[in-house]
Amino acid sequence: MIHAAIIGATGYAGAELVRLLGGHPEVEITGLSSVSFAGQPIADVYPNFKKKALPVLTDEDTAIQGADVVFASLPHGLSEPLAEKCAAQNTLLIDLGADFRLESEADYEEWYKKPFDKPELHGGAVYALPELFRDRIKTAGIIANPGCYPTAAALGLAPALKNGLVQTEGIIIDAKSGVTGAGRGLTQNTHYPETNESISAYKIGAHRHTPEIEQTLSHMAGVGIKLTFVPHLLPVNRGIEETIYVKLKDGVTMDAVRSAYVEFYKDEQFVRLEKDGNVAQIRCVTRSNYCDISLHCDKRTGTLIVCSCIDNMVKGAAGQAIQNMNIYFNLPESMGIDALPAGF
Amino acid sequence: MIHAAIIGATGYAGAELVRLLGGHPEVEITGLSSVSFAGQPIADVYPNFKKKALPVLTDEDTAIQGADVVFASLPHGLSEPLAEKCAAQNTLLIDLGADFRLESEADYEEWYKKPFDKPELHGGAVYALPELFRDRIKTAGIIANPGCYPTAAALGLAPALKNGLVQTEGIIIDAKSGVTGAGRGLTQNTHYPETNESISAYKIGAHRHTPEIEQTLSHMAGVGIKLTFVPHLLPVNRGIEETIYVKLKDGVTMDAVRSAYVEFYKDEQFVRLEKDGNVAQIRCVTRSNYCDISLHCDKRTGTLIVCSCIDNMVKGAAGQAIQNMNIYFNLPESMGIDALPAGF
Amino acid sequence: MIHAAIIGATGYAGAELVRLLGGHPEVEITGLSSVSFAGQPIADVYPNFKKKALPVLTDEDTAIQGADVVFASLPHGLSEPLAEKCAAQNTLLIDLGADFRLESEADYEEWYKKPFDKPELHGGAVYALPELFRDRIKTAGIIANPGCYPTAAALGLAPALKNGLVQTEGIIIDAKSGVTGAGRGLTQNTHYPETNESISAYKIGAHRHTPEIEQTLSHMAGVGIKLTFVPHLLPVNRGIEETIYVKLKDGVTMDAVRSAYVEFYKDEQFVRLEKDGNVAQIRCVTRSNYCDISLHCDKRTGTLIVCSCIDNMVKGAAGQAIQNMNIYFNLPESMGIDALPAGF
Amino acid sequence: MIHAAIIGATGYAGAELVRLLGGHPEVEITGLSSVSFAGQPIADVYPNFKKKALPVLTDEDTAIQGADVVFASLPHGLSEPLAEKCAAQNTLLIDLGADFRLESEADYEEWYKKPFDKPELHGGAVYALPELFRDRIKTAGIIANPGCYPTAAALGLAPALKNGLVQTEGIIIDAKSGVTGAGRGLTQNTHYPETNESISAYKIGAHRHTPEIEQTLSHMAGVGIKLTFVPHLLPVNRGIEETIYVKLKDGVTMDAVRSAYVEFYKDEQFVRLEKDGNVAQIRCVTRSNYCDISLHCDKRTGTLIVCSCIDNMVKGAAGQAIQNMNIYFNLPESMGIDALPAGF
Repeated sequence: MIHAAIIGATGYAGAELVRLLGGHPEVEITGLSSVSFAGQPIADVYPNFKKKALPVLTDEDTAIQGADVVFASLPHGLSEPLAEKCAAQNTLLIDLGADFRLESEADYEEWYKKPFDKPELHGGAVYALPELFRDRIKTAGIIANPGCYPTAAALGLAPALKNGLVQTEGIIIDAKSGVTGAGRGLTQNTHYPETNESISAYKIGAHRHTPEIEQTLSHMAGVGIKLTFVPHLLPVNRGIEETIYVKLKDGVTMDAVRSAYVEFYKDEQFVRLEKDGNVAQIRCVTRSNYCDISLHCDKRTGTLIVCSCIDNMVKGAAGQAIQNMNIYFNLPESMGIDALPAGF
Repeated sequence: MIHAAIIGATGYAGAELVRLLGGHPEVEITGLSSVSFAGQPIADVYPNFKKKALPVLTDEDTAIQGADVVFASLPHGLSEPLAEKCAAQNTLLIDLGADFRLESEADYEEWYKKPFDKPELHGGAVYALPELFRDRIKTAGIIANPGCYPTAAALGLAPALKNGLVQTEGIIIDAKSGVTGAGRGLTQNTHYPETNESISAYKIGAHRHTPEIEQTLSHMAGVGIKLTFVPHLLPVNRGIEETIYVKLKDGVTMDAVRSAYVEFYKDEQFVRLEKDGNVAQIRCVTRSNYCDISLHCDKRTGTLIVCSCIDNMVKGAAGQAIQNMNIYFNLPESMGIDALPAGF
Repeated sequence: MIHAAIIGATGYAGAELVRLLGGHPEVEITGLSSVSFAGQPIADVYPNFKKKALPVLTDEDTAIQGADVVFASLPHGLSEPLAEKCAAQNTLLIDLGADFRLESEADYEEWYKKPFDKPELHGGAVYALPELFRDRIKTAGIIANPGCYPTAAALGLAPALKNGLVQTEGIIIDAKSGVTGAGRGLTQNTHYPETNESISAYKIGAHRHTPEIEQTLSHMAGVGIKLTFVPHLLPVNRGIEETIYVKLKDGVTMDAVRSAYVEFYKDEQFVRLEKDGNVAQIRCVTRSNYCDISLHCDKRTGTLIVCSCIDNMVKGAAGQAIQNMNIYFNLPESMGIDALPAGF
Repeated sequence: MIHAAIIGATGYAGAELVRLLGGHPEVEITGLSSVSFAGQPIADVYPNFKKKALPVLTDEDTAIQGADVVFASLPHGLSEPLAEKCAAQNTLLIDLGADFRLESEADYEEWYKKPFDKPELHGGAVYALPELFRDRIKTAGIIANPGCYPTAAALGLAPALKNGLVQTEGIIIDAKSGVTGAGRGLTQNTHYPETNESISAYKIGAHRHTPEIEQTLSHMAGVGIKLTFVPHLLPVNRGIEETIYVKLKDGVTMDAVRSAYVEFYKDEQFVRLEKDGNVAQIRCVTRSNYCDISLHCDKRTGTLIVCSCIDNMVKGAAGQAIQNMNIYFNLPESMGIDALPAGF
């Protein structure tokens, strides 16, 4: 059994790790940490977990003792010191936060307003989006788990960019996310009566996932990409839908596009292409590790439109982290995260 | 008192006309028609109207007798014969359907797969978006009430296009609509468990509101515009949010953009510009006739992003129809439609 | 014009007063107070009110100057000192809080854990549920506006109790309320992801509306009533549904019950009895001042089941307060609160 | 591997069986039937299942061939002929419908308006609520899987009745169910805009689950019980909450009640008692096989109030059916249905 610790266990991503690792046949949860609730059973915070045998919440140092793998879901800036502790005890860190995602320290400083605290650790970090960078994960020093919006965006555009089918300028990503993406902390915007029956954009052109999306897409395209990314707060608990607009290169047909996507994902169990005419929708991926993608063309304007859906807490966070753990530890990649979505 | 008939009174737009005209101080509802429920009180279909004195549902011909104004909310193709009847009895028709919105019969044929049935009537029809075409409404033969998506799009982009601040190519409109926009008829897509907790795009690049949006924006810009329009079904009852992406012309500043919008709407009571930093959101316009607009810039890509919100059933249908009626009959423009939105 | 001040204007009930009084033809809002936001325009807190001319938020003393009527929506204990100030300047106080609702100081102490601060003021206070106590409202010193749950309960049971048709023991009220009933303040229970897609009871047998319900029902029955009241938090923004269980007296028929209700409410414009077979539902009263009531019988157990629905923010708060104001100032009782519910 | 067929696979309970059996380590789904969609892949109806290898939809006779167990989710009246076919090929039938739940044919006729078609089959049928009747399940001829409302009610009241702690007269069950309980078929009541933001009771005192609830509770109490049951349609996808009111017998303390429940369920993995002060809520059981129960007392009226929550599609249908299958085939009782609820 793999001994796993979860740091930041009482945030929504942490709780989702508890849920999924709690059912993983090769994992034993040996540590759970929380700053606010240390000393309490996690079922005091998440009564949905009552009756499940789980470690009491402790501080971070206690939680990671004896762990083979540490999952961290922390505000940015807090994973770097944790990474150092994990390295010291030779434990794999899978970081669900932002500290190790950006390769360029300049980008990190621009968007997070601080330099890398421990730049020497970053060399071993791998941006672990399995469908794109699987080979590097097995030997990672630190696994930087991708953000939710970037996962849907990268999977939605990678085949088109990798195959040079679309223009790299003018890409627009209109993203909608369920409210769990905003976390468990209380805000007026996520107070029920002010979220329900509404939608609005936020952090327009200024969301910190922007450079992460651009980094991956630039790797795919082989050229630097700047794009427009606008997220919206959607009145649902879970799920991300991204409608992505990109210009087709002259002469590229939808058949060519479709073939490229089929080929690119032919061995991927967690990416599902919709058949022609269907549209990806959140309810078909909720609580699963799938990414559903549909391809459309606005012939009048030569625009490829990609709809890409994931569950922000699973493929966008805890599920993908476990997928990465499975890869690293040579387990079947879908172990513990192969539940079918319910559809309702 | 103005005698008003509502044709198609048991659809959602019809019911919204009943609600708003039922409280209008200068209107008496004298006729209500319904194909499916003729002979019944409307409170059998809409129990929310019980105890309000309202005419029994009848057929169309009975309903329009003695009316000064006829509001029609019908599937396309059915308003043209009704328009002929209204003309014959010298009654104003305010058509909430699509029959008289498109000026070009070729466009109509392309998108609706049929020609105009009564082309001679179309000359007197006015596309009645008051903030853009107010002067023509007072003398209209037929009032073509704009569609919901086109209203939000036109108000969101008119000042930028009219003032030549943005490029006319590459405009993208990512629209989200509440489920009442899909009507009262039953479909699997609008069955509660399959709409709730989800979102998906539909009629991608193929929605019939596309040519209507293009028609208005082309008038504003003075050149023909082709754009990409993608609507989504949003799990709320009411409201439309459109996030509109358009490239700024070189050298145009956001100050210039903002000034143009302020000037353009300075005398408009139903258009509200958000102050800098705020974002338009559906809940602030729900059940009101307001259109809220916020302006944003993605400086990294030179993109103007406009968020435009309306209630699809009010400013996007019944409310705007009453605004047009008020203009036509020289009543205060906001009479009967000046309720403040609740915000929750 | 009646000059009206709203104390506690930035809570949900306060905002609803702004919305409704803002459209009342005989009222001018002359003062708005807020402890947290004094000095700001209310549109900073409720952007749905932007563009409407409204007083800037001030402290309480400033807001009530020159007012003919003061509406207060405050935590319990704060209305008594305000009442003294209103009395001193000869201004009517309509209190939406709990301070003046209970006639018995012993009951107040038991449920609110404090005595009356100003017992001398209580003699002039009237529990102002118009359909039951209209005559006393015109001459009230202070208008104690009923609570939301008590309004639906009292209207649902008054005719049966007044006419002695049901037993007074064993009454059970299973109530469900929209989330606005919990207020604008942030709590984990009303954080969107933990309210949405769920329901649960709260304050079981311990809600402070219990003695208020019992007080009114005891007056109706002419004997003291103790009952069981269990509220639930319902994942909707607005509305209360109460399913009320009460044993029929031997030999009482449903015809007799129905006749008693029809007679009792025959002149009431805001109470609507469902026709036989229909069931009262929240969506038919939302954003209106109506109370919809349906009557049912479980013959197998001799139980009368009453379903009673109101909008908690309108008939359960701001709307009823305005109804009371209208009565007091000899205006038509429905002025400013006669909007039809939309049904969706 | 156990070969399982699902009859009525495209209803919501059928789809939930596909989801859960699709992840069961000892089951292979070998047949799926549908009247409406025979010949199609189930992913055409439930796109959430795309990419999962599943049998094509067929007719009933084809689907059951070679099955070790047949799960049926059919309108009442259709399971009896199916039971005969299963008996003929010596296959276990687990019936999620109503045909075999009621022991008394008189009750069945009263509530379903038809006699048993094949009374000779009923002797071998077992009402399979595992926590109450586990011993009989292993030797059942037909497994009658309990209804959703009856499961929550029976588990909520069994310990109190079995131990004689409460009165058997005057029991009231106020139940609220998510919309999936109404099925996949389209109705105006479950059309999104008319379900959302509302609640209402339905089939008041007349729901067909009433005699099923009474049958089980009568067995527990050892005397015949008649009670009042009122279900409500709740605007959530899944879950049932029942608030149950029952009079405590004189002298019975809440300590005694609590002890009885603890003892009764001490070995049950799927029943979870809330600790004192907590309230059972739907979101803590959603998509799991748990039943959460909280106990409360209204001392003022001597009323025991039990809140009982399940997921209507899991413990109320497919999950419990699989629990029964596991018992019958001597598998660990929680195999394939031990997923933790997410809480959001």
